Parts: sequence; structure tokens; C-alpha cells
Amino acid sequence: MTEPYTLVGRQARPEDSEIRVGDALVGGKELAIIAGPCSVEDRDQVLQIARAVKQAGAKFLRGGAFKPRTSPYAFQGIKEDGLVLLREARAETGLKIVTEVRDVLTLEAVAAVADVIQIGARNMTNFGLLEAAGDLRTPILLKRGMSATIEELLMAAEYVASRGNLNIMLCERGIRTFERYTRNTLDLSAVPVVKKLSHLPILVDPSHGVGLWEHVPAMALAAIAAGADGLMVEVHHNPAEALSDGPQSLRPDRFAEMMLKVRALAGVLGRTLEAP
Amino acid sequence: MTEPYTLVGRQARPEDSEIRVGDALVGGKELAIIAGPCSVEDRDQVLQIARAVKQAGAKFLRGGAFKPRTSPYAFQGIKEDGLVLLREARAETGLKIVTEVRDVLTLEAVAAVADVIQIGARNMTNFGLLEAAGDLRTPILLKRGMSATIEELLMAAEYVASRGNLNIMLCERGIRTFERYTRNTLDLSAVPVVKKLSHLPILVDPSHGVGLWEHVPAMALAAIAAGADGLMVEVHHNPAEALSDGPQSLRPDRFAEMMLKVRALAGVLGRTLEAP
Amino acid sequence: MTEPYTLVGRQARPEDSEIRVGDALVGGKELAIIAGPCSVEDRDQVLQIARAVKQAGAKFLRGGAFKPRTSPYAFQGIKEDGLVLLREARAETGLKIVTEVRDVLTLEAVAAVADVIQIGARNMTNFGLLEAAGDLRTPILLKRGMSATIEELLMAAEYVASRGNLNIMLCERGIRTFERYTRNTLDLSAVPVVKKLSHLPILVDPSHGVGLWEHVPAMALAAIAAGADGLMVEVHHNPAEALSDGPQSLRPDRFAEMMLKVRALAGVLGRTLEAP
Amino acid sequence: MTEPYTLVGRQARPEDSEIRVGDALVGGKELAIIAGPCSVEDRDQVLQIARAVKQAGAKFLRGGAFKPRTSPYAFQGIKEDGLVLLREARAETGLKIVTEVRDVLTLEAVAAVADVIQIGARNMTNFGLLEAAGDLRTPILLKRGMSATIEELLMAAEYVASRGNLNIMLCERGIRTFERYTRNTLDLSAVPVVKKLSHLPILVDPSHGVGLWEHVPAMALAAIAAGADGLMVEVHHNPAEALSDGPQSLRPDRFAEMMLKVRALAGVLGRTLEAP
Repeated sequence: MTEPYTLVGRQARPEDSEIRVGDALVGGKELAIIAGPCSVEDRDQVLQIARAVKQAGAKFLRGGAFKPRTSPYAFQGIKEDGLVLLREARAETGLKIVTEVRDVLTLEAVAAVADVIQIGARNMTNFGLLEAAGDLRTPILLKRGMSATIEELLMAAEYVASRGNLNIMLCERGIRTFERYTRNTLDLSAVPVVKKLSHLPILVDPSHGVGLWEHVPAMALAAIAAGADGLMVEVHHNPAEALSDGPQSLRPDRFAEMMLKVRALAGVLGRTLEAP
Repeated sequence: MTEPYTLVGRQARPEDSEIRVGDALVGGKELAIIAGPCSVEDRDQVLQIARAVKQAGAKFLRGGAFKPRTSPYAFQGIKEDGLVLLREARAETGLKIVTEVRDVLTLEAVAAVADVIQIGARNMTNFGLLEAAGDLRTPILLKRGMSATIEELLMAAEYVASRGNLNIMLCERGIRTFERYTRNTLDLSAVPVVKKLSHLPILVDPSHGVGLWEHVPAMALAAIAAGADGLMVEVHHNPAEALSDGPQSLRPDRFAEMMLKVRALAGVLGRTLEAP
Repeated sequence: MTEPYTLVGRQARPEDSEIRVGDALVGGKELAIIAGPCSVEDRDQVLQIARAVKQAGAKFLRGGAFKPRTSPYAFQGIKEDGLVLLREARAETGLKIVTEVRDVLTLEAVAAVADVIQIGARNMTNFGLLEAAGDLRTPILLKRGMSATIEELLMAAEYVASRGNLNIMLCERGIRTFERYTRNTLDLSAVPVVKKLSHLPILVDPSHGVGLWEHVPAMALAAIAAGADGLMVEVHHNPAEALSDGPQSLRPDRFAEMMLKVRALAGVLGRTLEAP
Repeated sequence: MTEPYTLVGRQARPEDSEIRVGDALVGGKELAIIAGPCSVEDRDQVLQIARAVKQAGAKFLRGGAFKPRTSPYAFQGIKEDGLVLLREARAETGLKIVTEVRDVLTLEAVAAVADVIQIGARNMTNFGLLEAAGDLRTPILLKRGMSATIEELLMAAEYVASRGNLNIMLCERGIRTFERYTRNTLDLSAVPVVKKLSHLPILVDPSHGVGLWEHVPAMALAAIAAGADGLMVEVHHNPAEALSDGPQSLRPDRFAEMMLKVRALAGVLGRTLEAP
């Protein structure tokens, strides 16, 4: 296929895109660190974690209010209440809010709060949602589908872009393979490949990528070394009681320790990570 | 996991479910054959193919009006015009219409025409769409996602069922693997496994499963022998000029020949396939 | 790649190859049924199972004497003693012996007894072993590797053929995918694809393909319907106490029941399966 | 499974193993860099590349004399002549020789020259070869099979170890997935996982991992950041005319440039890489 990526391809824009989110930029020299709980559970939880990740140097708070779950009977998030708490966390900490949209119906509510709207792996080929997100101008964090090729990820971004929203950051979060020790297989080669094919920034989510907190720091460092523009990391102050994804969530102290290493690494690689 | 399938599991209903579509039943002794073009292109095309597949014994006409495509620049179907032509084909031939819904926004239009609403592989985890389909009572044909486990397919069905619509037929259409000769790897073991775990009917789409028309008949026969309740097959009178999926579409004469073999096989397996 | 299969390709021999094994032929009209235990355990076991599978219509007895196992500490077979018992089972029942070679060092011992030498999935790219097998004239049953493409399977056969041994039967036994309910994903599309590309017979092993005995009959029928030249099935009179692969072994009565269905199917498909 | 790795597991040896290769150690603080051509082609080629990789800081020269290839008709290496040239390259440069054994029959010849014997991905379940390698005391570089789980890789190492040879270094080289842009999917999460489960060193081969030279440096850096004990990299002075693996081979100048970055990274990570 020659030049299939009309808008998100390198040929459309030879220099890297930098996505503005308030006073932050994603895709430039400064690494973007998004951290927080899988799900927003209650005020205490989200504020406690927000303060901790901010103190460690994160500029973005992640937290799911509407959760797409495999089972209709699993915890689906606290929904609108979660958005209220995220807004409160932003007001207190100044962190930018990254939160997932579950479907077209909840897009408006999410867009009213989010600084960055996350489209998750399960929705990467939900073309109606991609188009609706393309009609907004809010930055979109688009995660690679579990069995999506890199080409398909870029084509999904092209759907968003084709409606006029070029504020897109991509995110590698692991693909499905036969390996059973890890939850997914984090495909870090997607980082240099996307960098070659597209001008869009690409982040890495090592938490979903491996599914085991103890291996998250190693993969976070690897992601940065591979050239990623930032990280999305699950942090929980009490992983054992998290309502979702506890096994892959870092405790705040471990996250802070990891951030020190990321900062040291950034220096060697020509990237920066502001001290908190 | 013990008994996770509250509504679609065998424990909820030990006998096989038979889904009524007008005067036809899917999931009983009679095999359900769905055939037709990938996309509805024009009146001539759809009527010509509809007549041919009816004559060969199909009771259901497939044909996409709204096409979810990897690229936003690929042919996306002729949309509402396609629905009109499908209605016309039904009026003339009596075939039941199976057509895909692309997103929540087009669900109402599709539901107004379709006898069976198809939710395709790319939408299997579009939970908003699954729930909206669950609010209808129209039968749903739910295709397995490209990297969905059988458990996830059943959980997607559970989403539909949990909203009150138990009129669900599942469809195996191939999964993503490393093999490159075929388009996907048709996982026929999904047939007996679904039969064990669930009371819902399961069909097989050998056209997407292998992606090469010449191997479709062999895989169609294999699907029936594995216990499938029916087939979904792409047929086009002029595959070389089809606007989508030409390489995997059977010509009507080859489809008719295949149907003779399916009928012979059905007899041995305790199934039936009415002569046209 | 154009015509890469110099010796095993269709262009080398347009008609199907029939492999002679004593008074039996594999690859002709008559289906070849290979059945027996995963491992030869003791005289009683192998003779009891041999009689049962013969009575049900199998012409070939499978049984591992040298077992390649993932762990060096797992049961590795009873080795030379197993070969003695297989010889004895042949003397009593007249069944042809199919047994696996573990490595080059045991090839001579295996070749002295086997009517068909099995090269298992783990050895499909053991090129030294393929070449040594190519120097013999004993028929070779070559199983597809767990992650081998169909092209690589045919190239492995080409290794054997290039040394002069064209007595090769291929065997699909499931590939590795993300699906976890089944042990492997049985890729039945390999059957028509191999038939198109090569003149060699292809069998299917549904036991390893699904790994669960209750789904073996469905997949055996599907394999025959897809055009396979025969089956390789694990049968054990006491699966619960089998030293290996118990969960995927059929009891003799269930195997006999399956054979009745295979015979009925064969008739419809233009194949034969002699009554026992 | 509890503690399945009797000899190579962490419980057998809580501290990291350091494998001695002459005056070098693999698995300690110092990173081990193995570089060189895919295949030894001629004296000029191997000496020229050997000098270049030594100058850039590699301590080990890779080069295949016996090449396991998918097709029996592909270039299979220059065999014994290659071993002679590798010996000559060692004599001139002092580099340690890492070269692959193709099968049991060539083990003695390879062992007579190699400082480290490579067992490649295609032979990871060639148990006869693993055992024969276990009877030696030469260090073994054991590569992960294309579809091997991490557990199976460690079990293959256990085969070698169970015969008394604990001088084993593991190597991640990419697994088979559906992604088609890269040759394989480099599973860097294998690095921290192996580190947790085993005391053996683990290296990474980014050349086979991605199959495209331009992405090799990014993945090499990522591997080191993930905690790998070293790298195995294909370098060729004239990739366009290499007899094998040209597209994934770095030119010497690019390799040298990459090594500068690896050295800088090592410092931050508490590892060392001696200046050349």
C-alpha cells in the first residue's frame, strides 16, 4: 500500500505533531506521564491517588468513570459520579484529566469533563465513535485494539482525523498472543514503526501490556528507550482492594521510584521529564 | 469461572434455542443458509444474486448497506439506498434480510428493514451497540471478534440478552493468527464448544474464515459436519468486479453446487436442508 | 513465491499421491484411521486398546515409545520396551504401527519397528532429523509445528523429499493462538489448502487439535468433510489414568461410535471406510 | 505450577548466574554484545565485519556456518569452511565466537570452534540436541522458539541443565503474531519475567525481533532498559548483498552509533559497557 495514511501519515506532515492539552504538550521533548487508578471508585481514592501521582511528576490523571467490561455483570464504573470526582481532582491538583468514553451515548458527558478522551482497545474499530470523536476538537488518546495491526491503528486514527480532529495521541497497550504468563504481549516495536509512518505521538501503557505490576517499571523504561512520547500507568493506593485491575496497579511509592528512573533515562535519550 | 453465562449458558436453558425469523427457525433441525453479496451495490446486482441464492436453497439474503471498513476512504456501502434495495429483494423473493449495523446511529434505520440484524466482528465489543440491540426484539446475528475468545463471544451475547433480547445467533468467522495463506483461521472447534456452553445457535461464515472462494465449499461442509446450525456465505455474480470481498465470493453456480453437497451431508448428520 | 515446492508441489505431480503402507494405501479413496494411546504404557494397555480400535475399523495403531515432552522430568515413554510391545500388538492384530521418533539417535530403533515413522510438531524444523528420515524409505507422518505456516509445513516435507523419500503424509494438529478453551486451534483450512498446493495426503489429529475428548468426534467429522485423507485419534481404555494426554483421549466405545459416523459421512463424500 | 524449574529456577539459585566465556562474563554488570553477520560468507566479509564490531565495542562475534533454513534449497551456510574463518577471526581480533549448531551431527564440529554454541529458535524443542549440548560444558546460547512460551523456554534450558551444563544464556528473539509490518513481535516482557523466574542471563536479538534494520537500534535500547544482559545484533558491511538476512542487518557505522547510545544508557541503569 503506498501512502495510505492521508492525514496521519508522515508524508502529510514530516515533523512530529505536538498535541496541546492546556499548558502541556504531548509529542514534544517533554515526556507525558498519565497515571491514576483503573476506575474512579470514590472521592478519597481518586484524590489520594491524584496527589500521589502529581507529587511523583505526572501531569495527567487517568481514571475510568464509564468502564467497558467483558461481562455485563462486572463493575461498570461509577459513571457520572466518577466524572464529578475527576473534575474535583483536577480542581485540586491541576492534573489534566484522561478518561475513557464507553460509547457514543456517553461521549458528550465525557467530553464535558475530559482534557483528553480515551478511546480504548475494545472501541478501536467502533467507527461511529471514532467519527463522533473526530467531530470534537478535544485531544483523543486512541489505544491499539487487542488484535489490531499497526496499520489498522493508524487507519483508526485516520477515521478521527478525517472528521477534522488531528489532536490524536496513539497508545500501544499489548496485543493478544499465545503467551500466558503476561496478560498481553506489549509490542514495543510499534513505537519506532509508528514514529516512522506517522507524525502522531505514541504513548505506551505497560500496565495493560504485561498485567503484572512488578514488571511494569521494566517495561515503562523500555518504552521510553524505544522512543515513546510518554506513559499511561495504573496506580492504586490499595491494589488488593481495587475494583478493577488491582494486579497490574503500582502502589504510589513504587510509581514514584519508577519515575526517578524514567527521569534519569529521559536525560540520556534527549527527552525531558520535569521534576514535580 | 463457574457458570458465568447467566442467560445464554446451557444451565439457563438445557435445550437448544430456536430463533424464529418469520416462518423460519434458526437452531432447529433445519440448517439456516444465509447467502448474498458482501455489499449491496445496485438493484440489478442484488436482485440477480438474491434470485440465484434462493434458487439454490438459501432462505436468507445477506447484503451490507452500511459497511464498517478499515479505511475511512474505502467504500462504505450505499447506505439507506441499500436498505431500500434489500426490502425490494425481499418483496420479490421472500428471502429474509440479514444486514449489518455499523453503529448505534444507524441501528434504527437497519432495524426498520432487517429480519436479522448483524453485529460484525469489529463491533463485538461495542457495548453500547450490544445494549441497544438488546433493547430490540429483532433477531441478532453476533459475529465473533477477530481476537475474541469463545468466552468473550458468549459474554457479548450476554450483553444483548441482559437487555431482554434472547433472539441471538452466534457466528464463527475466523480468528487472527500468524498463518498468512488464509485471510483468517476458521476456528471450527468453536462450534462444539459453543454448543456445550450455550443454548444459542451457532452459524459459520467460511467466506471470511478463509478469504479464498475456492476453499469456501470445503470449509462450509466442515462447518456443518462440526455441528453448525447454518452458514453465512458470500455470493456474487461477478466477483472480479465486486466492490468488496470479491476474492472470497462464490459465483452462483458454485454456490448451487456446494448446496447440493451440504444437503447430502445434512441427511447423514440428522439435519435437514429443504430443497429449493 | 512461484512454485517453491519442487518435489511435493502439485506441479511436480498433478494427481494425488497414494502412500503404500504394507497392504494399505494412504491418500486414495479409502480413509486412513490411526488410533491408539498417546504413550505405550504396558502390554495389557496397548493390546487392549489395539484390539478395540481394530474392531472399530482402524487400520493403524498409534502409540508413543519415545515421547518428546516439554519438561525433562515428565514421563518420557517406556522407550525400547514400548517398541517391543508395538511389534507384539502388530503381530496379534495386524494393525500397522505409527510411532514417533524423538531425535536422530533413536531413529534407527524406531525405523526397525515402525510401519510409519511420526515426526512430531516439536521436530518439524529439526532439519537433521528430516534429512535422516529422507534417507529412509519408510513412510513418514509429518506433523505441522505449533506455529508453522502451511508453507513451512510443505517446506519441511520438501526436506524429507529432497533426500529421496517421497512417502510422506502430512498432519494438521492445531496451531497456537490466543484461544484458551481449547488446547490448540485446529486449522482445518489447512486441508483444502494443502490439497491445492501439494499432491501429498493430509490427515488430521483432532485430539491434539482441541485437547478435550468430548469435542474430538465433532472435529473428526469436520476434518473428513473438509477433505482430509484420514484421522489420527488418541484412544485410551482408562483416560483418567493415562500417563499422558488423558483429557483428550476417547474411550474405545466412544471411538467406535465416532467411527460409525465417519463411515456414514465418507459415503456421502465419495470416500470409503471399510467395515471392520 | 509450583517451582517447576528444578535447576534453572530462582529458587535453585537466588543470585544471578554469571556465565564465564574465556575472560568475559555474561550476566554480570557488564553488558554482553554479540554482533556479526547472519552467515559467514568469505574471509574478507567475516574479518572486515569482525574488526568493525570489535572497534565499536562488541566482545563476541556471531556468524552462522551451518544455517537452518526453511527451504532445503536456500543457502545453508558454508559449513566447515565457515568454522575455519571464524577461528581465524578470533585469532586476529580476540573476539569470542558465537555460532549456531544445526543438528546433533554437526555439534562436535561446532563445539570444537565455538566459545558459545547457539541453539536457534527452530531447535528449541529438539530435545536430542538439548541433551547433547547438556553433555558439554561449553556455554550455550538458547533462543526462544517462535511460538514458545516463556515457560517452555525455561523448560528447554532445564533439559540442558539436567545433563550437567549450567552454562546457559537465554535469548528473546521475537515471537509469531498476526502483526505483519515486523518480521516477529519482540516480546521484551520476557526479560523481566525470566529475571524473576530464573537466575540465568537473558539477551535480546532485536534483529530477528523486528526484521528491519532501521528499527533495530530503538529495540536494542529498549531491551537494555528492560533489563537484558546483552544484545545479539546482525551487522553486515554490505546488507544489500548479504546471502541471508540483509534487510535486518545494520551497517557497521550504524552499529557503532547504536553502541554509543547503549553505553550511555548502561550508565543510567547501573550496567556497564566497556569502551572499545
